[in-house]
Amino acid sequence: MAKVVFLVTRRPDLSREEFRSYWRDVHAPLVAKLPGLRKYAQNLVITDPAQGEPPMDGVAELWFDSPDAFQAALAAPEGQAMLADVPNFLDATLVRAAAVDEFTIV
Amino acid sequence: MAKVVFLVTRRPDLSREEFRSYWRDVHAPLVAKLPGLRKYAQNLVITDPAQGEPPMDGVAELWFDSPDAFQAALAAPEGQAMLADVPNFLDATLVRAAAVDEFTIV
Repeated sequence: MAKVVFLVTRRPDLSREEFRSYWRDVHAPLVAKLPGLRKYAQNLVITDPAQGEPPMDGVAELWFDSPDAFQAALAAPEGQAMLADVPNFLDATLVRAAAVDEFTIV
Repeated sequence: MAKVVFLVTRRPDLSREEFRSYWRDVHAPLVAKLPGLRKYAQNLVITDPAQGEPPMDGVAELWFDSPDAFQAALAAPEGQAMLADVPNFLDATLVRAAAVDEFTIV
């Protein structure tokens, strides 16, 4: 399995609640349509006023059969539609993506 | 379940291979001893010369029953031993932690 992690930060003109709703209700269905997607999790960062501003607003995890399958998904019409939606709610300059090898320790 | 995500960057004097070995063979057993730990995954960032320097070297995911259980684990002797090990292989100034709500979409 090939896993890709995305660190995402909301557009500064959106509230956390607007970001949360858009990510869940509009963007997630576009991600879910990606051909070859095996698993998809959203991690919504919990804010704690005592801790100050968090380093990001969310972490997305996507799993595909292979790195090639991920690249093919991005190139497909569904991938292009998903990417085109990013500027609607994220600060695209702050999106960070990384392919990872996942090890379950416990 | 309470999930905490850590973005980690290796100490600049360590190679990727040294970081990888230390994280897996020395640090992971210390994390695994944390009281109340329910699940622990390491995500090792895959480097791609064509993509340049990745935004971090790894992403750790830890699950506890509650935020209080996580705080109690950090305060326990096992948590203190784990934290004391961090400067041995990570750039502590670049560690980013975030408590998250996890949603499985697909």
